[in-house]
Amino acid sequence: MTRIAVDAMGGDFAPDEIVKGAVWAAQDYNIPIELIGKIDEIQKVLNEISKKGIRSTRGGYFIKKIKVDLSKLDIKLTQADEVIEMGEAPGTAIRKKRNASIVLAVDAVAKGNSDAVVAAGSTGAAMAASLFGLGRLRGIERPAIAVTLPTMKEPVILIDAGANSSCTPEMLFQFATMGSTFVKNVYNRKNPKIGVLNIGEEEEKGNQLVKDTYKLLKENTIGLNFIGNVEGKELFQGDVDIIVCEGFVGNVALKTIEGSAMMLFKLIQQEFTSDIISMIVGLLAKPFMRRIYKRINYEEFGGALLLGVKGITVISHGRSSSYAIKNAVRVAKEAVEANVNKKIAEIIS
Amino acid sequence: MTRIAVDAMGGDFAPDEIVKGAVWAAQDYNIPIELIGKIDEIQKVLNEISKKGIRSTRGGYFIKKIKVDLSKLDIKLTQADEVIEMGEAPGTAIRKKRNASIVLAVDAVAKGNSDAVVAAGSTGAAMAASLFGLGRLRGIERPAIAVTLPTMKEPVILIDAGANSSCTPEMLFQFATMGSTFVKNVYNRKNPKIGVLNIGEEEEKGNQLVKDTYKLLKENTIGLNFIGNVEGKELFQGDVDIIVCEGFVGNVALKTIEGSAMMLFKLIQQEFTSDIISMIVGLLAKPFMRRIYKRINYEEFGGALLLGVKGITVISHGRSSSYAIKNAVRVAKEAVEANVNKKIAEIIS
Repeated sequence: MTRIAVDAMGGDFAPDEIVKGAVWAAQDYNIPIELIGKIDEIQKVLNEISKKGIRSTRGGYFIKKIKVDLSKLDIKLTQADEVIEMGEAPGTAIRKKRNASIVLAVDAVAKGNSDAVVAAGSTGAAMAASLFGLGRLRGIERPAIAVTLPTMKEPVILIDAGANSSCTPEMLFQFATMGSTFVKNVYNRKNPKIGVLNIGEEEEKGNQLVKDTYKLLKENTIGLNFIGNVEGKELFQGDVDIIVCEGFVGNVALKTIEGSAMMLFKLIQQEFTSDIISMIVGLLAKPFMRRIYKRINYEEFGGALLLGVKGITVISHGRSSSYAIKNAVRVAKEAVEANVNKKIAEIIS
Repeated sequence: MTRIAVDAMGGDFAPDEIVKGAVWAAQDYNIPIELIGKIDEIQKVLNEISKKGIRSTRGGYFIKKIKVDLSKLDIKLTQADEVIEMGEAPGTAIRKKRNASIVLAVDAVAKGNSDAVVAAGSTGAAMAASLFGLGRLRGIERPAIAVTLPTMKEPVILIDAGANSSCTPEMLFQFATMGSTFVKNVYNRKNPKIGVLNIGEEEEKGNQLVKDTYKLLKENTIGLNFIGNVEGKELFQGDVDIIVCEGFVGNVALKTIEGSAMMLFKLIQQEFTSDIISMIVGLLAKPFMRRIYKRINYEEFGGALLLGVKGITVISHGRSSSYAIKNAVRVAKEAVEANVNKKIAEIIS
């Protein structure tokens, strides 16, 4: 049975929210898990869960209390003495801290004790540890981060969301292949549509990288459903399944989306607390705003996938709540069970 | 007195909204204007304004009726037989259509009949016509588009928002200089803070272009107030005055912001029309939502500036309403009166 290794020490709210999310997933989806970190700290959180259950939240709002019977769950604990902090240079850190939680979480997959990793700590460290510990898939030049974004219709996959600052057209072509394979097998979408993120729709628009990628994708003979260029504003229309871009551009886009949404919600909050009338209207509007928030909340999507390594690594948001981690474990399980990596390796070869 | 040339034929709602916006600015700010386009079509709109006034809107909502006394305004009409359409290749179009409205609008500035151009048609055509008709400022390698974005505090300038797909560090350094000069003189901000759009805050983050730009800006001896790297999510915090980036990245960011905001407002609209209760709450919430919309509405900012040419060109959104054009004319006037170009030329030399 699929077991998911969770780096219990990574993320702004580790180990609390991470352990809670992992346990919650173990119970809700009946998934065996392996928690890697400082066992005494993890045990404290487990004791608290056992006594008080898990406070389920969305975007910080309390939703309900989840009761947990730990004795019915398959939870393995693995000691890791060290933690890689957010500021550390990833390459150096994973070499120096051989007993860091993220390194041992990846090791668990490499050794076959677990089947996938979920990590909410340093993205760079998770990437470096995965690349170093699992290795690249045969034929893949560089792994890439595939992030799921909400749209007006079905979610879209943006790849690469930041693993590779500079890319070649061949790399972008491989990202398209990996993204397509993922969407096909995990989201069960037939013939998923691939677009290249560009500053115009016409073939001759953009920089040399996107022009050359356009040509490669247009001429592909491996069955990729390339539909052309996509502009930033079309990201959210849901008319495309996979959007391919260089990591630098993808990361800027991703953080810009996060920033825009955060600003809008802050402005709404400001307006609805400006005086007594606005507060009353704000209270009435709250359930509707929460429904909107739910539709775009990153917690629902669980995390981004590092595609192209020999194993599944799900990279969660640094600010992950237990709910986000729970969904990340689900995503990891789905990716393992859909055998995404084997299918990528097949199509690439 | 400063006269603003307005391309009456450019934009999705031309000539109607363009002419109305220009006339409205002429009246509100006491600015002489020159309308360039098909005079019979412009005259029709003027007749309508004379009879019915101008319907002022924000984001499509009716606000109030503006009465206009054309006899008191200084409006010059210049015939242009041709129009450059959105799909046309800019370089070819401005050479073939020597009597296009955008070409003649730029000519009016080149000849000294007007002092700045406002254009809501093809951005590429406005750029090409300006570069060809006005020429580059001495010492400037490439002109760039500076767009004003709302933040939680004061608006920020993003430069380049799409004029140059590929850039060198030297170009980005010049964009920083132009943006800083603009903000200092038009927005009257002292010692404006410059950031480089990047995927992390540390000096060693990002691609080669931003790393090299970081070095150039850090070592600058011309008094630029460089504060370091800025991530996409910080775009909206208002802690920086100018954000510098390659045109490809800036354009993706800009359109992503537009797309995110559009999706959120659509989701809000959907939620507030889902049943009778939501419609009532939606009606109550409307004034608050409109206030938020006003704070982030691009119409308020009027348009982006093409900096680095010998003259002022304001490029407005293709979907510009009369209100957006009115503000664009104001921005053009302010830029002319602040003598931005002379000051850029001074600092660059």
